[in-house]
Amino acid sequence: MKIWQKASGNKKEVEQFTIGRDPEFDIILAPYDVLGSMAHSAMLEKIGLLTSEENQALQKGLRVIYQEIENGEFQIEEGVEDVHSQVEFLLTNRLGPVGKKLHSGRSRNDQVLVDLKLYYRAAIRELVAEITDLGLLLSQLSEKHQSDLMPGYTHTQLAMPSSFGLWFASFLEGFSEDLHLLKTAFDLSNKNPLGSAAGYGSSFPLNRTMTTQLLGFADLHHNVINAQNSRGKTERTLAFAMAGIAATLNRLADDICLFMNQHFAFVSFPDELTTGSSIMPHKKNPDVFELIRAKTNQIQAVPQTISLLLTNSTTGYHRDLQLLKEEVFPAIESLKDCIRMSTFMLQSIQIRKNILNDPFYQHVFSVEVVNELVLKGMPFRDAYKKVGLDIESGNFNPDQTQVSHSHEGSIGNLNLEEINQKLQNAIRSFDFESIEIAVNKLIGK
Amino acid sequence: MKIWQKASGNKKEVEQFTIGRDPEFDIILAPYDVLGSMAHSAMLEKIGLLTSEENQALQKGLRVIYQEIENGEFQIEEGVEDVHSQVEFLLTNRLGPVGKKLHSGRSRNDQVLVDLKLYYRAAIRELVAEITDLGLLLSQLSEKHQSDLMPGYTHTQLAMPSSFGLWFASFLEGFSEDLHLLKTAFDLSNKNPLGSAAGYGSSFPLNRTMTTQLLGFADLHHNVINAQNSRGKTERTLAFAMAGIAATLNRLADDICLFMNQHFAFVSFPDELTTGSSIMPHKKNPDVFELIRAKTNQIQAVPQTISLLLTNSTTGYHRDLQLLKEEVFPAIESLKDCIRMSTFMLQSIQIRKNILNDPFYQHVFSVEVVNELVLKGMPFRDAYKKVGLDIESGNFNPDQTQVSHSHEGSIGNLNLEEINQKLQNAIRSFDFESIEIAVNKLIGK
Amino acid sequence: MKIWQKASGNKKEVEQFTIGRDPEFDIILAPYDVLGSMAHSAMLEKIGLLTSEENQALQKGLRVIYQEIENGEFQIEEGVEDVHSQVEFLLTNRLGPVGKKLHSGRSRNDQVLVDLKLYYRAAIRELVAEITDLGLLLSQLSEKHQSDLMPGYTHTQLAMPSSFGLWFASFLEGFSEDLHLLKTAFDLSNKNPLGSAAGYGSSFPLNRTMTTQLLGFADLHHNVINAQNSRGKTERTLAFAMAGIAATLNRLADDICLFMNQHFAFVSFPDELTTGSSIMPHKKNPDVFELIRAKTNQIQAVPQTISLLLTNSTTGYHRDLQLLKEEVFPAIESLKDCIRMSTFMLQSIQIRKNILNDPFYQHVFSVEVVNELVLKGMPFRDAYKKVGLDIESGNFNPDQTQVSHSHEGSIGNLNLEEINQKLQNAIRSFDFESIEIAVNKLIGK
Amino acid sequence: MKIWQKASGNKKEVEQFTIGRDPEFDIILAPYDVLGSMAHSAMLEKIGLLTSEENQALQKGLRVIYQEIENGEFQIEEGVEDVHSQVEFLLTNRLGPVGKKLHSGRSRNDQVLVDLKLYYRAAIRELVAEITDLGLLLSQLSEKHQSDLMPGYTHTQLAMPSSFGLWFASFLEGFSEDLHLLKTAFDLSNKNPLGSAAGYGSSFPLNRTMTTQLLGFADLHHNVINAQNSRGKTERTLAFAMAGIAATLNRLADDICLFMNQHFAFVSFPDELTTGSSIMPHKKNPDVFELIRAKTNQIQAVPQTISLLLTNSTTGYHRDLQLLKEEVFPAIESLKDCIRMSTFMLQSIQIRKNILNDPFYQHVFSVEVVNELVLKGMPFRDAYKKVGLDIESGNFNPDQTQVSHSHEGSIGNLNLEEINQKLQNAIRSFDFESIEIAVNKLIGK
Repeated sequence: MKIWQKASGNKKEVEQFTIGRDPEFDIILAPYDVLGSMAHSAMLEKIGLLTSEENQALQKGLRVIYQEIENGEFQIEEGVEDVHSQVEFLLTNRLGPVGKKLHSGRSRNDQVLVDLKLYYRAAIRELVAEITDLGLLLSQLSEKHQSDLMPGYTHTQLAMPSSFGLWFASFLEGFSEDLHLLKTAFDLSNKNPLGSAAGYGSSFPLNRTMTTQLLGFADLHHNVINAQNSRGKTERTLAFAMAGIAATLNRLADDICLFMNQHFAFVSFPDELTTGSSIMPHKKNPDVFELIRAKTNQIQAVPQTISLLLTNSTTGYHRDLQLLKEEVFPAIESLKDCIRMSTFMLQSIQIRKNILNDPFYQHVFSVEVVNELVLKGMPFRDAYKKVGLDIESGNFNPDQTQVSHSHEGSIGNLNLEEINQKLQNAIRSFDFESIEIAVNKLIGK
Repeated sequence: MKIWQKASGNKKEVEQFTIGRDPEFDIILAPYDVLGSMAHSAMLEKIGLLTSEENQALQKGLRVIYQEIENGEFQIEEGVEDVHSQVEFLLTNRLGPVGKKLHSGRSRNDQVLVDLKLYYRAAIRELVAEITDLGLLLSQLSEKHQSDLMPGYTHTQLAMPSSFGLWFASFLEGFSEDLHLLKTAFDLSNKNPLGSAAGYGSSFPLNRTMTTQLLGFADLHHNVINAQNSRGKTERTLAFAMAGIAATLNRLADDICLFMNQHFAFVSFPDELTTGSSIMPHKKNPDVFELIRAKTNQIQAVPQTISLLLTNSTTGYHRDLQLLKEEVFPAIESLKDCIRMSTFMLQSIQIRKNILNDPFYQHVFSVEVVNELVLKGMPFRDAYKKVGLDIESGNFNPDQTQVSHSHEGSIGNLNLEEINQKLQNAIRSFDFESIEIAVNKLIGK
Repeated sequence: MKIWQKASGNKKEVEQFTIGRDPEFDIILAPYDVLGSMAHSAMLEKIGLLTSEENQALQKGLRVIYQEIENGEFQIEEGVEDVHSQVEFLLTNRLGPVGKKLHSGRSRNDQVLVDLKLYYRAAIRELVAEITDLGLLLSQLSEKHQSDLMPGYTHTQLAMPSSFGLWFASFLEGFSEDLHLLKTAFDLSNKNPLGSAAGYGSSFPLNRTMTTQLLGFADLHHNVINAQNSRGKTERTLAFAMAGIAATLNRLADDICLFMNQHFAFVSFPDELTTGSSIMPHKKNPDVFELIRAKTNQIQAVPQTISLLLTNSTTGYHRDLQLLKEEVFPAIESLKDCIRMSTFMLQSIQIRKNILNDPFYQHVFSVEVVNELVLKGMPFRDAYKKVGLDIESGNFNPDQTQVSHSHEGSIGNLNLEEINQKLQNAIRSFDFESIEIAVNKLIGK
Repeated sequence: MKIWQKASGNKKEVEQFTIGRDPEFDIILAPYDVLGSMAHSAMLEKIGLLTSEENQALQKGLRVIYQEIENGEFQIEEGVEDVHSQVEFLLTNRLGPVGKKLHSGRSRNDQVLVDLKLYYRAAIRELVAEITDLGLLLSQLSEKHQSDLMPGYTHTQLAMPSSFGLWFASFLEGFSEDLHLLKTAFDLSNKNPLGSAAGYGSSFPLNRTMTTQLLGFADLHHNVINAQNSRGKTERTLAFAMAGIAATLNRLADDICLFMNQHFAFVSFPDELTTGSSIMPHKKNPDVFELIRAKTNQIQAVPQTISLLLTNSTTGYHRDLQLLKEEVFPAIESLKDCIRMSTFMLQSIQIRKNILNDPFYQHVFSVEVVNELVLKGMPFRDAYKKVGLDIESGNFNPDQTQVSHSHEGSIGNLNLEEINQKLQNAIRSFDFESIEIAVNKLIGK
């Protein structure tokens, strides 16, 4: 039975339509719901709304449920509306009337808000872990292939010498920068909304600073309307951060799809990692990277869907917010998959050597030759003209094996140490440890 | 085992990642896949690639499978890659080597293309049926409430007299116009892609005109590259059409959420169709319409996601296209739900009577009074000024029960007959009957 | 001075902010505003709100203004709020008090609505003209290059033989299909909103059927709220249609950017149509097609921006609608530019001949060989295996000059006549002639 | 004449199409282009590519141009391609051949990249200044109206007591949190791309650390491909940040539009800040806030447009990137306008007093009464039921003047000091001062 249910029964159609896909997402939120209740219960004791015995009973009961969730033994029973009701139902069943007292000073609004914040914090931690792995691999690949030259393109036209080392490292530094957006999403997720009740606060003398500390939040949303407004804002910000990472992955995947094309044949993968065709026996298709490209496009579309869900709506909870879960939760999983599969595939990437030795690529050395002339004293515009004329008349014969770039971040000076440091700094900026300490304390580990 | 599988086994991670959510969508496509195969088999006989006996055996085998699908007895077995393979596998198992012959002159590319087209045609038919129901109800409500006045707003400010009859009919005509976009999507879905193979045609002497007729398609995509390009274009066009309908529903839902607000209290619904609050005993929340508003926003976001999936990609099949299903299939179901729930709810809508009799609304009659003066001969700008001064000085006392609008489509002359006709014409423009005849012939009904 | 201006002056900041970019768009709307006023004036005479003399004076005055607009002599004067006010101001200045009478039974809401509809009709005509030109060229190019083979790609991998004839024709048929969406937008633009006043109709005995005929509209929005709702819906539908055309252009441009890459070198353009690099003398960049690709992406983003502008907003005019012009008007110009530049560039496209004679491409013939074996009696799956083994063992030596595809829409049977017919039918479905006749009658041509 | 121009002249159509709207944006970039050249020149001296005399001549020449730009005396002359060429042209005209030497070791690619970074830094500073002003006002309004109660809504239904103080402060804290996203965009803008040349570095021994310091950048993009990739990423991140701020403003504007509705009449503005109607003399329309709502929707659409422009594109400069300016530059101006107009309007906002004293609102006190019962010892669920029954039977008579919320961030304890501190900390996190010092040093102030 629903908490708010009126005398007359709700029509089944309404129930089915309004519940939607919530059950599948509520299971994900279950452990976080229990954590939130643990903190709330402790706080209720502190302000005298629960006795010490009541709180201890609730803490014990909640730990049992937390364990059941971890063991995969928890489910939302038929006819129970949501995860919050299921937890309350179990507590009341097992502990008696004290189970009912846990809801004092709380609304389902701030209960789900706190669940979501705790879940996003944990999800971001997993995203950071995936990026850490991929970053390590990119760094190794960059170092290993620092002398393997390849052409660089502008306008999809052959332009200048590049290298695989430079190319791998570009993504490494790219992800290190993407983490700053994810850190912003993390900071927003790491603020306590508990105590905002239905979005206008409570007449109970709640101690929000206490629940903030117990749950390991770095801060709280002070203003209760703003806490309610953070629903949607947190999701949008996380979606922005995921879209940023997705965009970097999308470019990596698109590069690889092109470089696997037979005209380029710059990179390849073992047969067991590519797919064939039902009517073309010679094909070796980059399906994994095509799907990473496509999935990262889906992820890049999430911010816009969220904007549509949220815009032109007034202050205060609206049921519309429920659908944010449908957009964000699968996107988190999809992004983790895409990063993990990128790492998985890149472990087996095979690089073609000595690409630029082929005379086909001689024009990419034109800038090198121009610059050499300049270094010998010719004004740039004159050197440019001379090389242009040499090319037109067929007298252009550069040395295609040597490139001497020396400045910061160039082919000959990859700055890998500095870039790795950037990534490590970005990773360390997430203070996952103090969260873990707080959570472990709550669950009595 | 996969048809294109090479000697070395495909790594499990790749398989899992590339298959993704396809199994759940492939089940939906199953009956259409069988229909496509029936037409292809008949055509192969016609051009001499199958004997009459072979074709008859295949037709019989396919009908059995079609029946199994209708009975819910069909499934894609563990280790079978997709619905096409499952059908071929069943045929080969049951009929022997002839099952293998069905794939001649076809690629999975045009096989899935034809499946999708047939599915979209059927899905559009269901959408039209839902709109037909909602349209009928809106027409009845408009007629019933043609004399129930309500205020009309501009800038969310009280503006002029309106009526519930006018308001209901606005959505009726709106949907009738939205159907034109859906018809465009239907026409695009109703073109045969079969015979385009992997997107570049086939060296078999296929008879594409014949399969066009057998499958009840109104036309074919002549150019085979264009047939391949129709993947994505069909989905985008359908998404546009669904977004159009969703936008109309969104406005209806947003109006109702506002009109249910206690300051307005223009409409209400029985308690069993609204929801309450876990901490506020007096609430009666319009959750169904909030969710319709939100779901129609999700649907309006689909075109953009599809654009991101498709843009900046060259001619020829890319695996990225697989993910279109994840966007379009659930949107179809969601839109059907939203229309059906709108119909379900509106059946019970309760209208507040005599709203405009309240002096609170007297200003909405100002234009009426201005116009009366004009009809009596005062120039418009002068009448406008006089009424403005009357209002400012408190001397404005209009008759608030009478509104005499007479022109086409106005409060006093709703043009319901014409609008209903518009809707009927739009519905009839979809030629579902000839499709049904063709399909029934294929499956031997 | 503004018509609705109250005693106290409006602060300059508010005025500047609310007017925004309207003046630049209002100039575009000027001729249509005059047309709308001509029809309204004639109708006011018919229903007795203007005398015959008054209407004749107004018609004459409006024709003068129309001529001034055509001559580029019309402008919105400093301090005049918008085009409607400017026209009224000129009439009143020139004709005296009768100029004021034109506003009877009209609101600026339905005045701008009718202006927009008339403008969109005209803009769509120009879009159709551009597509007609491009279609003609594509058809000629397809015919000219029907024997010039090129490789076809799937997964960006070499797949099967294709031809330039097939490739050009794919866009031809693509555009012919895109026109259906544009026709839907046209039909929506070709409905009369006049008489809906501020969105709730008028107490004047307007004759909306008469203005519908005078302005050459095919139909009217009967319901006046629906007429108001068509603002936004018309723009969104037009944006959908433009996005569809843009998507086809985007693919054409993306193909060309790839085919101009030196690894492919399938197509090229004269030097004067490409651009160079400031530091790389050998570059020949496809800037025009890169910009077409980018501009068609901007155009594809317009529907989403419009959805954001419109969603979650209740029935009735909101000032938000003003910004639709900023999205749609420039997109129309941009799309016309993109189509025109595509035509301009393709007139000079140079095709590389005999591409497939190079042994590099031998694998694209594998399906041809498989099919030959099948036509000689080998089951498909066996033939597929044999060719696969031949390829792996290096024994695959196909004839690379001959491709014998014969079915509808294939390399050897382009169906150009049928596709051209499709395009012509689509073009003819727009009934621009009857509009022209009506407009000419109004302006006295 | 263009630097890269080949012998044959570029057709005028191509030139017009490719230049597009660049001239209007290039004028904005002019001062930043000069700053970039100053730093580059000084660095070229350091590495021996310019003599001390040459550098000094260039510095002097550049300072003159910088002054001319500040004085509004700078323009891009007819036939000059872009701002970079105009500056070089002026220098060469005035200083002779040394002007040509400035281009050594630079490409237009990294030149425009550095210009954009410098411009975004400056634009963000202006955005922060606008938010600072608005924040100060919101804080004052919140304090002034901390005792003015209003109803709080959930599901657009009357829910619980709120206050204007709480409502104003919610936006204050909201903006303080939005600044974190803007800080991320700032950090990305504050990284030096100079020295990346065309995206693959240079064979000149550039000193990128030196230009980083001279331009006051906090860091550099080490990897040169990543520096090139930052084009687009910087814009997208800035667009995310602007969308975040826009979303907060959108809610503020939407609230005000609703609260100005006559049913609510919670807030009002002086006549001179609202607008009237051309046919309804009583109207007082919230046009400014409707346009803020609409403009913030346009701004929220920018990230998606950018994603479409960038996605599915390979490493390396593409001309597509040029169009980013068309999306981002106007959005910056529009957002500044929206914030400034919000501040301007809110300075004159009038609040209705004692709203909740009206018995119409008694139900919003139901939770207060439930909580009182709980504080007196009744279990929550029982208290909830009792109040529910009182309401149904008409026995609910709460005190509607008193609300005693005491916890952090509630009506009775707004935490304004903490929230103001949050805003100040966020503002201070932008280190605009050290940038100003660096820039002043460069220009010799």
